[in-house]
Amino acid sequence: MIREFVKSFQPYKVVEGNYRIWLDKNENPYDLPGWVKEEIFEELKDLSFNRYPHITSMPVREAIADFYGLSPENVAVGNGGDELISYLVWLFEGEQVVTTPPSFGMYNFYAKLNGIPVVEVPLLEDFTIDGHAIAERSKNARVIFIASPNNPTGNLQPEEEIIKVLETGRPVVLDEAYAEFAGKSLWRLIEEYPNLIVLRTFSKAFSLAGVRTGYLLANEEVVDALYRVKSPFSVGVMTMAAVKVVLRHHELVERRVAKIIEERERIRKAFREFTYPSDANFLLMRLNAYEFLLEKGIVVRKLSGRLDGHIRVTVGRKWENRELIEALREFLEVRGCG
Amino acid sequence: MIREFVKSFQPYKVVEGNYRIWLDKNENPYDLPGWVKEEIFEELKDLSFNRYPHITSMPVREAIADFYGLSPENVAVGNGGDELISYLVWLFEGEQVVTTPPSFGMYNFYAKLNGIPVVEVPLLEDFTIDGHAIAERSKNARVIFIASPNNPTGNLQPEEEIIKVLETGRPVVLDEAYAEFAGKSLWRLIEEYPNLIVLRTFSKAFSLAGVRTGYLLANEEVVDALYRVKSPFSVGVMTMAAVKVVLRHHELVERRVAKIIEERERIRKAFREFTYPSDANFLLMRLNAYEFLLEKGIVVRKLSGRLDGHIRVTVGRKWENRELIEALREFLEVRGCG
Repeated sequence: MIREFVKSFQPYKVVEGNYRIWLDKNENPYDLPGWVKEEIFEELKDLSFNRYPHITSMPVREAIADFYGLSPENVAVGNGGDELISYLVWLFEGEQVVTTPPSFGMYNFYAKLNGIPVVEVPLLEDFTIDGHAIAERSKNARVIFIASPNNPTGNLQPEEEIIKVLETGRPVVLDEAYAEFAGKSLWRLIEEYPNLIVLRTFSKAFSLAGVRTGYLLANEEVVDALYRVKSPFSVGVMTMAAVKVVLRHHELVERRVAKIIEERERIRKAFREFTYPSDANFLLMRLNAYEFLLEKGIVVRKLSGRLDGHIRVTVGRKWENRELIEALREFLEVRGCG
Repeated sequence: MIREFVKSFQPYKVVEGNYRIWLDKNENPYDLPGWVKEEIFEELKDLSFNRYPHITSMPVREAIADFYGLSPENVAVGNGGDELISYLVWLFEGEQVVTTPPSFGMYNFYAKLNGIPVVEVPLLEDFTIDGHAIAERSKNARVIFIASPNNPTGNLQPEEEIIKVLETGRPVVLDEAYAEFAGKSLWRLIEEYPNLIVLRTFSKAFSLAGVRTGYLLANEEVVDALYRVKSPFSVGVMTMAAVKVVLRHHELVERRVAKIIEERERIRKAFREFTYPSDANFLLMRLNAYEFLLEKGIVVRKLSGRLDGHIRVTVGRKWENRELIEALREFLEVRGCG
């Protein structure tokens, strides 16, 4: 009864269990403060739960557009960036989806789900993209996915290389899920490049992973196309209220981002020779310490393939990072590398 | 840049504007009471907004499973029934999607989106399905969609006809979005028929259209397949909290459903010769009164095709229904049919 194709997918798995410290999903370690939650509840008291939300999520698109000084016609909102990626893989003319591994796995997942061939143009030795090589291989691309900062390597991609790719005229999704931790975004380029789609999220810097809201900034034509095929009424009133409220407290977000960056650099300093520079809220470490940390109750992400033997560690709260550092020091001592 | 195929979709439109009475979307006219919202907020205070929700929405699947006395392995949850339909059209082996017009438009929408041919087996004169005809034309069906109560006609489908379709062994989605207003559901048949998928929602009887949560009850194998290809983490913590709380207040839902049924029958009695019997929270009326009502500030659904000249009217609050009845009486007087 079930298609063989569907059975060929392995269920997406994450570690579950009773661990003390979760540094595996690049979440923000700080929950919204109680008073921000109260503001969300205050909004929700006056909203109708029994009525469908706005068909194309206009209230939240307007709030995001105001934040950037754009028009709501340049903004689309989805249930997490994932929902938007699921449309972007097949929205445009062309053949293949182009990705730059090692990078975020969902580009390949949704391409496979839609039966679209994927062309992989690996990152260079230093994990930057090779704009020229991507352009060469993107002649018939439907869409090219570039993450900056890249996940799981943490580095920003050089602007001049991204521009080389944009100059092809093929649609480019620039996934900036972690841009707030880099202090740099190329979203303003959407005015110059109608083929640029900048993907952002409230799940990281804005502490709303539990609410799942991603958005994209792009040319009106792209946003219009997306809403022709996107499920109507898809973003609920509770989600919209949460986003509207967190946007009002951007200074709080900025303070927390600054704290996370400070902590990121502290961890990196402690293990400089094993740790890559990062522009995100996580660190790529050349340490085969996944199992060791798990036994200490600390969950990180185990990497494979080209990054076999590496771990990706989300920056946590101060005490969590302290325990991480202690555990990793012990790991190095045990191995005689400390 | 955008595929012609995408441009061929017309954006899904709903009436917007400053109207007084909205009877066009089959919403529950009663919002959650303040004290139920407070309970939701109480739950949310202790939930982490910064952490991803459970990857396969287990907490809410467990709450729904408990409610039915099923296992969570028989329950899948989506952002509205729509998200689930978007997977169900292509999850199974076979060729066509079979629908029974006039019925809910999203089955055809998602079939078209996935390039899947649709076989339409029209409802009989009395809007019931012809089980034998459906079975005949479903030999290679991927999946057959049957809505009961049907939207927009409002009638339950006869159990014996549904069984004829189930006996084909082809996957059958029985969309019971309005089952609470019929006081009848066939969900228990999932134990007998592994090819039966019962689709339900919190958007109607449970007053949660604004939160968008649908669910399905089905064989473990179907639920497992769905979670292999479904976007992970897709149901947020706010949504899960809302669903858990409303399930605790089922007696409130039942009282409101009873009120809506009483009002439905009151409207029907007033216009018996123009109104079809209904097992849902809306009425199909053979009255070409869409524009007339809109001018009075009352929005209903205008139908077309086989139901040209008909309107679908959601049962509202008592005062809304009173105004509707007055306006329709005036409409009939003006036309000289009163």
